Amino acid sequence: MTGYYAFMLIATALVLMMTVPALALFYGGMSRSKSVLNMIMMSFISAAIVGILYVAVGWSMGFGGDGTFFAKPFELFWLDGVTTDTYIGVMFQMTFAIITAALISGAVADRMKFSAWMLFVPIWSIIVYFPMAHMVFSCTDDSLICGRIGAQDYAGGTAVHINAGVAALVLAIFLGKRVGWPRDKMRPHNLTLTMLGAGMLWLGWYGFNVGSIVFADGVYSDEQFLSETGRTFANTTLATMAAILGWLLVERLLHGKVTSLGAASGVVAGLVAITPACGAVDIEGAVAIGAIAGAVCAWAVGLKFKFGLDDSLDVVGVHLVGGIVGTVLIGVFSTSEGAGGIDGLLYGGGLGSLGDQVLGVLVAVTYSGVLTTVIALAIKFTLGLRIDEDAEVGGIDLAEHGESAYDLHSGSISGGATGVLAAHTSPLAKEEV
Amino acid sequence: MTGYYAFMLIATALVLMMTVPALALFYGGMSRSKSVLNMIMMSFISAAIVGILYVAVGWSMGFGGDGTFFAKPFELFWLDGVTTDTYIGVMFQMTFAIITAALISGAVADRMKFSAWMLFVPIWSIIVYFPMAHMVFSCTDDSLICGRIGAQDYAGGTAVHINAGVAALVLAIFLGKRVGWPRDKMRPHNLTLTMLGAGMLWLGWYGFNVGSIVFADGVYSDEQFLSETGRTFANTTLATMAAILGWLLVERLLHGKVTSLGAASGVVAGLVAITPACGAVDIEGAVAIGAIAGAVCAWAVGLKFKFGLDDSLDVVGVHLVGGIVGTVLIGVFSTSEGAGGIDGLLYGGGLGSLGDQVLGVLVAVTYSGVLTTVIALAIKFTLGLRIDEDAEVGGIDLAEHGESAYDLHSGSISGGATGVLAAHTSPLAKEEV
Amino acid sequence: MTGYYAFMLIATALVLMMTVPALALFYGGMSRSKSVLNMIMMSFISAAIVGILYVAVGWSMGFGGDGTFFAKPFELFWLDGVTTDTYIGVMFQMTFAIITAALISGAVADRMKFSAWMLFVPIWSIIVYFPMAHMVFSCTDDSLICGRIGAQDYAGGTAVHINAGVAALVLAIFLGKRVGWPRDKMRPHNLTLTMLGAGMLWLGWYGFNVGSIVFADGVYSDEQFLSETGRTFANTTLATMAAILGWLLVERLLHGKVTSLGAASGVVAGLVAITPACGAVDIEGAVAIGAIAGAVCAWAVGLKFKFGLDDSLDVVGVHLVGGIVGTVLIGVFSTSEGAGGIDGLLYGGGLGSLGDQVLGVLVAVTYSGVLTTVIALAIKFTLGLRIDEDAEVGGIDLAEHGESAYDLHSGSISGGATGVLAAHTSPLAKEEV
Repeated sequence: MTGYYAFMLIATALVLMMTVPALALFYGGMSRSKSVLNMIMMSFISAAIVGILYVAVGWSMGFGGDGTFFAKPFELFWLDGVTTDTYIGVMFQMTFAIITAALISGAVADRMKFSAWMLFVPIWSIIVYFPMAHMVFSCTDDSLICGRIGAQDYAGGTAVHINAGVAALVLAIFLGKRVGWPRDKMRPHNLTLTMLGAGMLWLGWYGFNVGSIVFADGVYSDEQFLSETGRTFANTTLATMAAILGWLLVERLLHGKVTSLGAASGVVAGLVAITPACGAVDIEGAVAIGAIAGAVCAWAVGLKFKFGLDDSLDVVGVHLVGGIVGTVLIGVFSTSEGAGGIDGLLYGGGLGSLGDQVLGVLVAVTYSGVLTTVIALAIKFTLGLRIDEDAEVGGIDLAEHGESAYDLHSGSISGGATGVLAAHTSPLAKEEV
Repeated sequence: MTGYYAFMLIATALVLMMTVPALALFYGGMSRSKSVLNMIMMSFISAAIVGILYVAVGWSMGFGGDGTFFAKPFELFWLDGVTTDTYIGVMFQMTFAIITAALISGAVADRMKFSAWMLFVPIWSIIVYFPMAHMVFSCTDDSLICGRIGAQDYAGGTAVHINAGVAALVLAIFLGKRVGWPRDKMRPHNLTLTMLGAGMLWLGWYGFNVGSIVFADGVYSDEQFLSETGRTFANTTLATMAAILGWLLVERLLHGKVTSLGAASGVVAGLVAITPACGAVDIEGAVAIGAIAGAVCAWAVGLKFKFGLDDSLDVVGVHLVGGIVGTVLIGVFSTSEGAGGIDGLLYGGGLGSLGDQVLGVLVAVTYSGVLTTVIALAIKFTLGLRIDEDAEVGGIDLAEHGESAYDLHSGSISGGATGVLAAHTSPLAKEEV
Repeated sequence: MTGYYAFMLIATALVLMMTVPALALFYGGMSRSKSVLNMIMMSFISAAIVGILYVAVGWSMGFGGDGTFFAKPFELFWLDGVTTDTYIGVMFQMTFAIITAALISGAVADRMKFSAWMLFVPIWSIIVYFPMAHMVFSCTDDSLICGRIGAQDYAGGTAVHINAGVAALVLAIFLGKRVGWPRDKMRPHNLTLTMLGAGMLWLGWYGFNVGSIVFADGVYSDEQFLSETGRTFANTTLATMAAILGWLLVERLLHGKVTSLGAASGVVAGLVAITPACGAVDIEGAVAIGAIAGAVCAWAVGLKFKFGLDDSLDVVGVHLVGGIVGTVLIGVFSTSEGAGGIDGLLYGGGLGSLGDQVLGVLVAVTYSGVLTTVIALAIKFTLGLRIDEDAEVGGIDLAEHGESAYDLHSGSISGGATGVLAAHTSPLAKEEV
């Protein structure tokens, strides 16, 4: 039995690593050099706030009993009554709550008050994420998406990616465009960070998807463990590879070149799309879902220019679109040999599964959309969402954190003996630096 | 049974990763661009030297029998008589020796002869670390801190963090201040590296702390394994999160802004403080220890300016202070439900445990302080500790390694067709580059 | 039993991480800033193409039956008939195919058409790698290197490193030198990336080597698992440490200084050399092999200047030379206590094992050399291998991908309120950036 739990210990650490530092760097590299630290900080602070909140009420709201939208918030308050042999499961689910909140930050680059972000994250987690996790991951009779609708979602196409993508869309709308967007291209300031982040996300995603299969089905026999984890691992791998190729193909057709940002985005799009489907399909289905998601998302990320929506780092185009593609296509590619035992349209299962999946998506979009709007408006008209224009133009890193990311020139070789005199002595630099 | 060892294989690899590359990059990013490679090299060379030394005499001095200060140095020389089924335990302990030495390098930034570092590391490991590891981790009847005093220290608050912090203090004193410090702020040259390093350290620390619980208690039943590893994992996670919040709160109060360097430092402060306590406390205790450590360290790192001590990258302020906070607070927050079965002050256990913990700290501080002083003086008056001033001002990377970290401009886009001609052709660049 | 498979899940994810992003960054940092993205992209695209190809025919050619050079290519086409409980083994071997192809990219920096690379990779994998994996890793009676010759190679000294090194040599010859080489030094543009990559490679290599022992011997008893994995882990660790020291020693003697690039290269040289030998030798042998490999490779990387061969990032000097050193020295240091039960020259086994190892090396060099030459010539005289000179001088990132890696200055602090106006607006930047 211990093999499972040895795996879950590592898997949980890997999923936490997906937010800190992987997502932080993936997004940070796509930001401009004057806002990279704020972008990274949004992931770090999400980890700290959501993590502590999760042991307070998150686990209880998710897994503290039955309920259509959420379980009893105070039944297991601060893990009261939860024995330590369940802690790794709690921690595993905690890391999902953390990354879902952090994913949203990609839409608000350069312009959201850090205080507003620190307020948004806990409120949104309580009102939106913790309930959605119950609806999807706590498969009781009454839980809306898994129990009542019966939609398959193994690792969070709805609860994580569609949820974060919708919230990103709402925040981007209420924040408005960055100064100069889209006239200024605002290209990524350091693509090596983005490629690093993409690679680390891919690694961590094995914890995410394979861990979800282990978490969902509880104790396996050896044979089940091998079979289910092997299938999930292979699906996750192949969908990602197919999505890279799908993205680059569409990019080549639309823009004439294949880019490294496209490859990194393809990695994430494939991983997003296979997330809900990882336990439901076979490897042919995984390749199909990955290829479709890569191609569709490569096209979708261009839409923001048409709609004038400054979804700065493409959270909507990758996570919302990729999440919908993956969740819906379960209805097409699901096979009864998978963990759910359900045949999709292509395997002779008719339209039933497809309908359930679409309904699950609609519930997730609606729930997240309505409640995130309420939260965003509440913050907008009280604390305010956005930093002022001077601060934005001067750079949010300096304005909100009193820092800048790089000082590559002071004390440079060419400076020779006088290099030290050129060292940055901004009065805003904190004293202990 | 194999689940434990599957975990230990990964845990050991992760703890090695904490030094190479995580700590190297965490420190490297905080250095200036003209000294980042030297900073990174101090971690790499520590891994190479201490690793080989560890199989020679380190394991034997630590675990080769009983003894107050150390075991028999040559009993298990070069793992003689150690069967390969014990190797993973040897490797696990080796990685602790490596990171402890490497941690010290943060205090000597920009100015320590690389030859002096290469001499200091093995001597210090043999005289200071290997004995301290015996006193703490080899819980025989006679071993001083664990056996005789009976202080709890699960993963190295004393042996690793207090030990390295004291050694850093001693070296910083005998090296003296950097040219221009503290007039020049010497701010971090690349905070994205520091955030990356902090994130990777956090990941690796699960190997460090959870692995220590597995190592310490030997073979568990399944139930014990789940319970002890789950508790340790949760404590490690929550203390870190609380420390981020504690650090940022104090930073906001003292300096007006929350910084990314503060978040990264909070991560490390929390991890340091929970290291000794990870098996002793429950999650409430973990949050308290983390929050206190974050807050106290955020304040402590400013003291070096008051004392005129150039602890360049805050090894003393984070590892010594954080290590003391965590080790002492075990006496307050320890619970008899933990691995040690000891109630601290808050759980009705009286002052006994608190006294043991304080005594353990005093032994560690004294042992490390006295012997590191002897070693530092011996090197100072023979080989010499410090590079000359011209080399320091010009940059230690160039002076000691003949390299510089970045060449971001040669062959840039704007250079167009002539870019290649502008390529760096320093005669100091090594030929095979 | 599940402990083995829990380990293999993580090990496989780690080996994939070795290519994306570890190798990509290790090589990327050594490239110039105008070609780093192309270098990274060669690794990403190798993962996507080889991964999907592997489930199509790679597994079947390697493990689909007996055969001297390869098994039946279509017996297990698209994993037909392979049950999901075998998938993790398939995935593990897939990651080896991926990294072997990606390793070659270091020799073609700055100048290979991306379309030619996308064509070379799948053809080379089918004709060269998949057969070589069968000869080495599928130890049937007929398989050439393992079965017939009986050479020991636990994790791929021949199939991976010699194979990739020879292919790199061939491509470097047919591509020709870069414009300006060796007059312009073309030094690494970002050594922090290279150090990061080296550290991540080291971490992942535990999956590579320890996973290979688990894969090779199938299901172990608990005792065997502990013993074999412990030995392999220790050998991998110690050889790497010895190689760092060996490299730096030779570097100090030849060039007067020890460099960070030397330390990173030493890490890789040691890991390469211990790869074939990790299960065959004891820790003394591992240290010897590592030290010899580090020293020899440190000398060998200078030879390219003598031969006028632009092996840009030293693939030949490290992987071919290190692979030969490690594979041949098994014949000297192998011990019958190891997994193969064979005594080498030093342990009284005579010249038999040494002869087998040399023969294995010769087969690998010949097979890879001849067939890679055929493939390279075929592409050279059809699609063409090399971008035109203007594109190379201007930078392959811009020419082939329409991107540049860094934009560190737009919106800088000093730019203040006008920073945004200076943002890069190259018409070549893709629209969605």
